[in-house]
Amino acid sequence: MPSLAIHRLPMAHPGDVSALTALIDRGAVAAGDIRAVIGKTEGNGGLNDFTRGFFTQTLMLLLARETGQDLAALAARIPCVLSGGTEGALSPHFLLFAVDRAAGGARGLALGTAFSPPTPAEQIGRDSQIEAVAQAVRDAMADAGIARAADVALVQVKAPCAQAPGPGARAGDPRLLMALSRAAAAFGVGRALGDIPEGGEDALLRDRHLFSNRVSISSGIEVVANEVVVFGQADGWAPGLTAGVAPMADLLDLPGVCAAFRAAGLEAAPAVPAAQRGRVLGVIAKGEPDAAGAIRGARHTMLGDTDLDAQRHLRGALGAIVASVAGDGQVFVSGGAEHQGPPGGGLVCVFARD
Amino acid sequence: MPSLAIHRLPMAHPGDVSALTALIDRGAVAAGDIRAVIGKTEGNGGLNDFTRGFFTQTLMLLLARETGQDLAALAARIPCVLSGGTEGALSPHFLLFAVDRAAGGARGLALGTAFSPPTPAEQIGRDSQIEAVAQAVRDAMADAGIARAADVALVQVKAPCAQAPGPGARAGDPRLLMALSRAAAAFGVGRALGDIPEGGEDALLRDRHLFSNRVSISSGIEVVANEVVVFGQADGWAPGLTAGVAPMADLLDLPGVCAAFRAAGLEAAPAVPAAQRGRVLGVIAKGEPDAAGAIRGARHTMLGDTDLDAQRHLRGALGAIVASVAGDGQVFVSGGAEHQGPPGGGLVCVFARD
Amino acid sequence: MPSLAIHRLPMAHPGDVSALTALIDRGAVAAGDIRAVIGKTEGNGGLNDFTRGFFTQTLMLLLARETGQDLAALAARIPCVLSGGTEGALSPHFLLFAVDRAAGGARGLALGTAFSPPTPAEQIGRDSQIEAVAQAVRDAMADAGIARAADVALVQVKAPCAQAPGPGARAGDPRLLMALSRAAAAFGVGRALGDIPEGGEDALLRDRHLFSNRVSISSGIEVVANEVVVFGQADGWAPGLTAGVAPMADLLDLPGVCAAFRAAGLEAAPAVPAAQRGRVLGVIAKGEPDAAGAIRGARHTMLGDTDLDAQRHLRGALGAIVASVAGDGQVFVSGGAEHQGPPGGGLVCVFARD
Amino acid sequence: MPSLAIHRLPMAHPGDVSALTALIDRGAVAAGDIRAVIGKTEGNGGLNDFTRGFFTQTLMLLLARETGQDLAALAARIPCVLSGGTEGALSPHFLLFAVDRAAGGARGLALGTAFSPPTPAEQIGRDSQIEAVAQAVRDAMADAGIARAADVALVQVKAPCAQAPGPGARAGDPRLLMALSRAAAAFGVGRALGDIPEGGEDALLRDRHLFSNRVSISSGIEVVANEVVVFGQADGWAPGLTAGVAPMADLLDLPGVCAAFRAAGLEAAPAVPAAQRGRVLGVIAKGEPDAAGAIRGARHTMLGDTDLDAQRHLRGALGAIVASVAGDGQVFVSGGAEHQGPPGGGLVCVFARD
Repeated sequence: MPSLAIHRLPMAHPGDVSALTALIDRGAVAAGDIRAVIGKTEGNGGLNDFTRGFFTQTLMLLLARETGQDLAALAARIPCVLSGGTEGALSPHFLLFAVDRAAGGARGLALGTAFSPPTPAEQIGRDSQIEAVAQAVRDAMADAGIARAADVALVQVKAPCAQAPGPGARAGDPRLLMALSRAAAAFGVGRALGDIPEGGEDALLRDRHLFSNRVSISSGIEVVANEVVVFGQADGWAPGLTAGVAPMADLLDLPGVCAAFRAAGLEAAPAVPAAQRGRVLGVIAKGEPDAAGAIRGARHTMLGDTDLDAQRHLRGALGAIVASVAGDGQVFVSGGAEHQGPPGGGLVCVFARD
Repeated sequence: MPSLAIHRLPMAHPGDVSALTALIDRGAVAAGDIRAVIGKTEGNGGLNDFTRGFFTQTLMLLLARETGQDLAALAARIPCVLSGGTEGALSPHFLLFAVDRAAGGARGLALGTAFSPPTPAEQIGRDSQIEAVAQAVRDAMADAGIARAADVALVQVKAPCAQAPGPGARAGDPRLLMALSRAAAAFGVGRALGDIPEGGEDALLRDRHLFSNRVSISSGIEVVANEVVVFGQADGWAPGLTAGVAPMADLLDLPGVCAAFRAAGLEAAPAVPAAQRGRVLGVIAKGEPDAAGAIRGARHTMLGDTDLDAQRHLRGALGAIVASVAGDGQVFVSGGAEHQGPPGGGLVCVFARD
Repeated sequence: MPSLAIHRLPMAHPGDVSALTALIDRGAVAAGDIRAVIGKTEGNGGLNDFTRGFFTQTLMLLLARETGQDLAALAARIPCVLSGGTEGALSPHFLLFAVDRAAGGARGLALGTAFSPPTPAEQIGRDSQIEAVAQAVRDAMADAGIARAADVALVQVKAPCAQAPGPGARAGDPRLLMALSRAAAAFGVGRALGDIPEGGEDALLRDRHLFSNRVSISSGIEVVANEVVVFGQADGWAPGLTAGVAPMADLLDLPGVCAAFRAAGLEAAPAVPAAQRGRVLGVIAKGEPDAAGAIRGARHTMLGDTDLDAQRHLRGALGAIVASVAGDGQVFVSGGAEHQGPPGGGLVCVFARD
Repeated sequence: MPSLAIHRLPMAHPGDVSALTALIDRGAVAAGDIRAVIGKTEGNGGLNDFTRGFFTQTLMLLLARETGQDLAALAARIPCVLSGGTEGALSPHFLLFAVDRAAGGARGLALGTAFSPPTPAEQIGRDSQIEAVAQAVRDAMADAGIARAADVALVQVKAPCAQAPGPGARAGDPRLLMALSRAAAAFGVGRALGDIPEGGEDALLRDRHLFSNRVSISSGIEVVANEVVVFGQADGWAPGLTAGVAPMADLLDLPGVCAAFRAAGLEAAPAVPAAQRGRVLGVIAKGEPDAAGAIRGARHTMLGDTDLDAQRHLRGALGAIVASVAGDGQVFVSGGAEHQGPPGGGLVCVFARD
């Protein structure tokens, strides 16, 4: 019976995996048990953010050396969901998810992974991507042994983009294609979980009332397929870990943030007490600049700033709120929350041990 | 006996004073009663942020038209403390402080203002600036009728800088001169209040253990003198308003933020309840990127980002935390907290009505 | 018979008109003779660039004081075409065009101005804007006394935009609306001059082979109408000034730049000789980042940079090339050259005295 | 007798070495012959630019695979001088310098390389770094067989920096330390060549009249030693290649740029004719924003821009001027020209074949 272990590790720069090397060297993690990585690098989070690819290459080199497996095979098996941008209080780090097949228990937090087939630029933001993601979610649930959609806590996806979309692409602007890729992936997850039962490519970025509150999507040019990681409750997994998830109604929804920590069994009044901080194993948050240009009636300036990208604005703000509750800046915050919550809102997911 | 009124007004852009025009037109504010303005414009907050000067010019034009007074005389009498940069959840707005001499009460929140003589570039960051600010604080306390330093809640200063410091300046880099100006002004306030009883120009930016937690300084090239606004308790002022102040130990000190709101008589558990939000009249926060490069042991990336200025990082993060408690983004947040709190920390001041 | 005078004046910051004040004070310019202003301020050139509005306000205040005319009347009569962004070698400055009715000659460089009716957001990028600009060009030609389209050297337009386009606007993204406004204005000029004889709103931003090489458009939220300035040869104007115009085939077309200077009667081999630099009265250049992502087969990175806006990239590059020929950085360079030259190309216009 | 080959190769992103892989695969280059790499990646060129490390890692992985040599040994033998930042017209690319020992001739363009011992943060900007670089230049000259300093055309150095300088470092601000490292390396080269015969660490960044016009320095945290590449004339090397070098008096010195191309045997009137462009093998340019804040009396805004780093301004401007002469954007442009030319000036070096 398998057991999930979550390690939160710092990085000194995007090419630094020394914290993982140390864990492996002292036997705390077996390289072959690593199933997924979710991390934040210190780039700008946009099209020309190469810190994600740099970290992935460095990590896979380490794993190849440790496991003797081929680089390409590792990259095709282990989802490496990286989001660039550690604005404000955020701190570069990565979450390492390892599964020890020997351990086990009656019912606990399970992890499953799956990759869709490669998605060329022409398929991004199309029905074919939606369905490919839906199938990958079903595959990842099966991989985890999660029986029902209701048992899924969170689905994290890294969806592809293209730096220079060709004439066959749905959008010539790669930034728009990036948003379409996130939207299609969210629809795919929503379809698999029943959260977005209907709606196809025409509804992407348009019918904003359609969303799932259990999904977090990043998009980037450094992946070629939709990489899916599913978390949820399943039989046969060791107990002791919890994933607490709560929606955020808008960017300033501090009670929503606190609710996620409480759902993970922690106090948050308003911050997690120092004595409980060690129980926090990882935090994932998703949000977006309200497209209406205002939050609770007060105009914000995130969308019209020529010098500072809207998503950099967003991550700095959302990250600080979540970090102020969590107690430190090692929070995975990603902007671009299309169909991943109500317009202007988002979600928070907290991994904690009992 | 005088009465202080605080109005929090939005601006659609840095040249927009229509909200004040409307207040004046309907008789809610007499232009001649305006004593001070503290506001946030949507620039970058740095040397080449001209939104502050644009707003000031527009405001003074309105007041000149309404009062018949000379532009220069108004600018030399009414402190207009503007801070650029509304990153993340922050919203451009200004606080208008008006004093109605006819009203009154037994003891209440008082406001006093004063200007130092013009401070040329050569005096910035020198003992002469420290002493000039200290004297202006004493003058402003006298103006308000605040008898004792212990009765002062907050001193807000706008200190001058120079775009192209000449050879006689203490620093040739205008960014460093800006920091020295803030530091000297903080020392001046600390000297007047007894919070920083000793220490001269040599200690600026060096002896970081010397600080006052009742001072907020902005610096910019758009002012030529140190403009001082003092808030505190004094006899003869109308009751009904409170200024609650609390220090922040570091950027993530959410309990510290909540404490300031509670000091102003509001609940904050964790956010101000919707029913009480209307009682919030204004919020001022001050902070800085921790110079050690880490917050609670987690590395931050604010100081080494070539594309995004450290103070823009800071304001987006601090502003979001404070706004998530206050309930909206109309929060005055200013970076550069040298000697205005412990290293890496800051303060929050909340103006509220009973 | 009228005579055109062109003054090139520096600004120390966007609120600085002291160079003009000095000219007026010593009698070198009569405030009432000023017919148009074209200038570069040091903002970011984007939606949230308020340096343009700040300069305009400051300039109009000076002119109102000097002429005794109403601010609004002046703003509705004198086109003030400002472009933000002085990246790289560029230097903030403005060109002042004054017409002395008393002077005169047989035939020379003429200037005419006109304003279209206000263009609300819903009309931007529509056939109605195209026609309104075409009519304003005809009006400005009549104002100048320019008889034939062939005699027009350059038409400079400042076209409106909207910060928050409503549902009736052709584009919800204000950046796209800005581009549509420039495109429609270019079509309007092209229609009036016969350079773009056909093509309506559907062709904007699409049929890039339709362009005029005698037009330069800026767009911004600080104007509400299309403000048009026409330069060309007309009878009855004093001789002595030349406007030399040449197209640029792409961003690196240095021979094209040199050709414009030679068309204005100057040597450029490759730079204007020091002895002739004083004859340069003003330089206007227009260009755009090649949408194909490459220049002469070499990939450029202007379009996918999350931290640095494509137009800021463009202005820094184009501005430096033109300034290296002109001999200094007081060059008006504006990005966004839709239909103002071949795709990826642009134009240069040089004003010089004999 | 050895022969130098220079290949100019594009990169699609900082992890792309496919152009080199293709060269090796078709036998045009032997991996073991590669002696040095000089390239431009598309980062921001500052402290947090990780594109340089990403490219180096990718390149060394390829060379390790092809040569069977150890990664660390390769990195310690082959200087890989990368400069981030392809603003404006610049295009990401790298120059590959390969030496074929079997070929040969009587006298031609020679290349030599050397590494100093590792330079810890405490030694950066000190006399010990100056002398270490001087010795490495002598070693590299010996490696090339260049007999006299007068025969040296250009010395390119990549000097180390530290992301978080400790208390023993000469500067706590890593940006300042980066400048000190460039300055010390320039002094080291100047000492070895006799261009800066005297002056020690106290003169760095201060005595700006001390400079060499045959040196180009980049600095970055991705190297730990001073990596030196020397180019010059030497006996026994195959003829056919030329390195033409010319100083630039200031950023707008277009005649200076043209002079470098002519020194390499090309026409430049003003641009290299299309028929000769294929003879250009590589271009290196160095410059800096004039610290006086003006170029030829016209104020520039590079130094006070809070949103856009001064070196990004500089590279975009200088790169465009050089590219407009060269004919395309594959130009190595690096800012930070302390002691590498007169204040505000720089140099251009053109590699061409006959």
